[in-house]
Amino acid sequence: MFENVISIKDFGKDDIEFILREAENMEPVASGERPSSVLTGKILGMMFYEPSTRTRLSFETAMKRLGGSVVGFADTGATSAAKGESLTDTAMMLAGYSDAIVIRHNLEGAARYISDIVDVPVINAGDGAGQHPTQTLLDLYTMKRFFGKIESLNVALVGDLKYGRTVHSLAYALAVFGVKMSFVSPPELRMPDSVIHDLEGSGVEVTETERLDDVIDDVDVLYVTRIQKERFPDPEEYSRIRGAYHIDRDMVAGRDLIVMHPLPRIDEISPEVDSLPQAMYFRQAFYGVPVRMALLKMLIRERSDSPE
Amino acid sequence: MFENVISIKDFGKDDIEFILREAENMEPVASGERPSSVLTGKILGMMFYEPSTRTRLSFETAMKRLGGSVVGFADTGATSAAKGESLTDTAMMLAGYSDAIVIRHNLEGAARYISDIVDVPVINAGDGAGQHPTQTLLDLYTMKRFFGKIESLNVALVGDLKYGRTVHSLAYALAVFGVKMSFVSPPELRMPDSVIHDLEGSGVEVTETERLDDVIDDVDVLYVTRIQKERFPDPEEYSRIRGAYHIDRDMVAGRDLIVMHPLPRIDEISPEVDSLPQAMYFRQAFYGVPVRMALLKMLIRERSDSPE
Amino acid sequence: MFENVISIKDFGKDDIEFILREAENMEPVASGERPSSVLTGKILGMMFYEPSTRTRLSFETAMKRLGGSVVGFADTGATSAAKGESLTDTAMMLAGYSDAIVIRHNLEGAARYISDIVDVPVINAGDGAGQHPTQTLLDLYTMKRFFGKIESLNVALVGDLKYGRTVHSLAYALAVFGVKMSFVSPPELRMPDSVIHDLEGSGVEVTETERLDDVIDDVDVLYVTRIQKERFPDPEEYSRIRGAYHIDRDMVAGRDLIVMHPLPRIDEISPEVDSLPQAMYFRQAFYGVPVRMALLKMLIRERSDSPE
Repeated sequence: MFENVISIKDFGKDDIEFILREAENMEPVASGERPSSVLTGKILGMMFYEPSTRTRLSFETAMKRLGGSVVGFADTGATSAAKGESLTDTAMMLAGYSDAIVIRHNLEGAARYISDIVDVPVINAGDGAGQHPTQTLLDLYTMKRFFGKIESLNVALVGDLKYGRTVHSLAYALAVFGVKMSFVSPPELRMPDSVIHDLEGSGVEVTETERLDDVIDDVDVLYVTRIQKERFPDPEEYSRIRGAYHIDRDMVAGRDLIVMHPLPRIDEISPEVDSLPQAMYFRQAFYGVPVRMALLKMLIRERSDSPE
Repeated sequence: MFENVISIKDFGKDDIEFILREAENMEPVASGERPSSVLTGKILGMMFYEPSTRTRLSFETAMKRLGGSVVGFADTGATSAAKGESLTDTAMMLAGYSDAIVIRHNLEGAARYISDIVDVPVINAGDGAGQHPTQTLLDLYTMKRFFGKIESLNVALVGDLKYGRTVHSLAYALAVFGVKMSFVSPPELRMPDSVIHDLEGSGVEVTETERLDDVIDDVDVLYVTRIQKERFPDPEEYSRIRGAYHIDRDMVAGRDLIVMHPLPRIDEISPEVDSLPQAMYFRQAFYGVPVRMALLKMLIRERSDSPE
Repeated sequence: MFENVISIKDFGKDDIEFILREAENMEPVASGERPSSVLTGKILGMMFYEPSTRTRLSFETAMKRLGGSVVGFADTGATSAAKGESLTDTAMMLAGYSDAIVIRHNLEGAARYISDIVDVPVINAGDGAGQHPTQTLLDLYTMKRFFGKIESLNVALVGDLKYGRTVHSLAYALAVFGVKMSFVSPPELRMPDSVIHDLEGSGVEVTETERLDDVIDDVDVLYVTRIQKERFPDPEEYSRIRGAYHIDRDMVAGRDLIVMHPLPRIDEISPEVDSLPQAMYFRQAFYGVPVRMALLKMLIRERSDSPE
């Protein structure tokens, strides 16, 4: 069906729906309820040039729950990369030891570059300002799983919409489903015009606002992202803005919506929200496991089933 | 039977005896003689906020010998904790990926706090000055395994009895078995009065001395701990004291006792003791595996056997 | 057959040929084509006191492809070694948790020292300026696999022949097969006289030259090694020498030879060589897996098959 997972833009609506259905079948294995030996004897190679907890551990969990194993590195300290080995050489080596590669790299395009070189499937786990397609798939899965379908939703993306690769990819994917979107951010962190232009070109309805209050009565999903201190030269301006986009219990309790966040959060969402039924971010993190299991199974098993 | 392993004080004599019997059944699996698939498909989540070799690797070994897998982190360098993620959020994430969590943390109470939040079993692998219950269980197992029973033993705890969480927990557990104890330490590093008071209140016989010679003819177990240089402002005083509690071959050879140590040792026990039959500390380290296997099997399998 | 793998000098020609045959049987498992449960339930203990990517990951891959697991450390940051624990104590602990130990250490002799202490098999994965026998075995396997036999080959060792433990071990092993060798290096980095003397004593033909051109028409194998900048006080001298031993496309294309390299390379071989059929270094890295599988199977399984 597909050989690599590099950018969410490579996937059509049918592809995405197929992956989400497969992920749902995986849930009993993902939760440890049902053992699986689908990938017994198979090895996932991990190349993490940037630190990651959630993405890395959920890929590891996905592989191990399927009976497979993992080799590779979580940072570059104890590796040949520290001796000056090229990305190409490291990838060629790891491809020799594994049945698929997951790569996180600080440079945009690194994953696609590697996928052109090695003869095993490659999954992009985040390449700098570029793509993070498995995050987008688990975000979509979370919405699908809760609401039953994605098409008719009304989704607000909140916070830093300028720098976050997560919200850009998610916006493109939601557009494929015709989802109505609101972009809620301070002026300094607006969704880039190029993204808005693309989305409008694809026929979806998008609105922009600085105020959460403008949209909160209408949305099904509040997708909250981190606003990084480093974006603001003036600490007071940062404090003011952080406060304006902070999600607390009063804002959410009793409303017919879910709160999502790619995590880690710092203080965008008050901990008192965690116990509300609207809080979906920990469940969302767990959903990374069945989604990544579906991808690993498709990429690795289908490949080994096909004639040499 | 129990849902978490947080403090040895949560376990009665019957609980402890049950765990030690289960551990003995685990020995052929722990040594690699007999494979096991008791925990196939299950995942242990490791949260090690402080470095550890023995505890961490023996938990990993225990889980893998039972057919299970491990995910998590051995230090916080390559994790979201480095980005400022809270302990709660990290634990919620890892609980979504695993069937049980093992945590080592520098703050007392961290393990119990986590066990109240997540919906998987939690095992405390050391929380600051607090508890390290699996160490205590393997210490008890070592005595039980060598002498057949714990009740009638005479145990000397030697070295730094003031700061070591290991010796405090062990003393409380030995009291449950009515064991006669001697505390051998320099005055600066005496067993805290509060502990002695508790022990005497439970009816066991304890004696205190500064001199090993006073007790060595009577004890079955010399449990030696590390005296840390940092405790002494004066290096000469440190040297003098270190010498007074140093265990060498002459002190031990031919006597009817065993020498235990939680390891790592620096120079509390002379390497020439290692080859004596009295030296039990490497065997003791190995016993961490069957004891932790017994706990993992009880916590994870019984949970998944029970109705949802 | 043998209990440890410490130095290639411990292996006779028959031993080596047996290992290479076993490695060939392992290839379908090494490539993930065929699952194996030969070492299910078994654990390999890894003690890496120096960073390594290829050696460490290929041992891990080998163990996991055979159904086994790995515990240990990839660097000493998060371990008791950082607290001052002795090599002996760390090895005794890990031997208690595992069925075989792989050690890389900065001190020559460390692996043999450990093998005398612990009661599980020990594999040397590089001990300082000493030995790296599994590298030598995979080098030999690469030649055997490509040419069908090793005996009649003509092998040029190129680059830094003075400091590289890899080329010294390889030269001794090639001598066992009566291989004709050329040593191509700058005068500063000549093969040590002691090695040449030993080789000539064993009856093999060796020649020395500074110029690649002198040998390139006659050799079957160009075995290229890294020339380290640190060896040259004068950066210009380093540049000149690096250039003289640089392998590019024109030098190799169309010739009846293979190019090998233990990797990581920096710039000894031009990337444009990678796509030529002569480029064997990535294949060579992969061959580390079947060779190490053969060793692990022999050391661990034969041990557990034998009566206690």
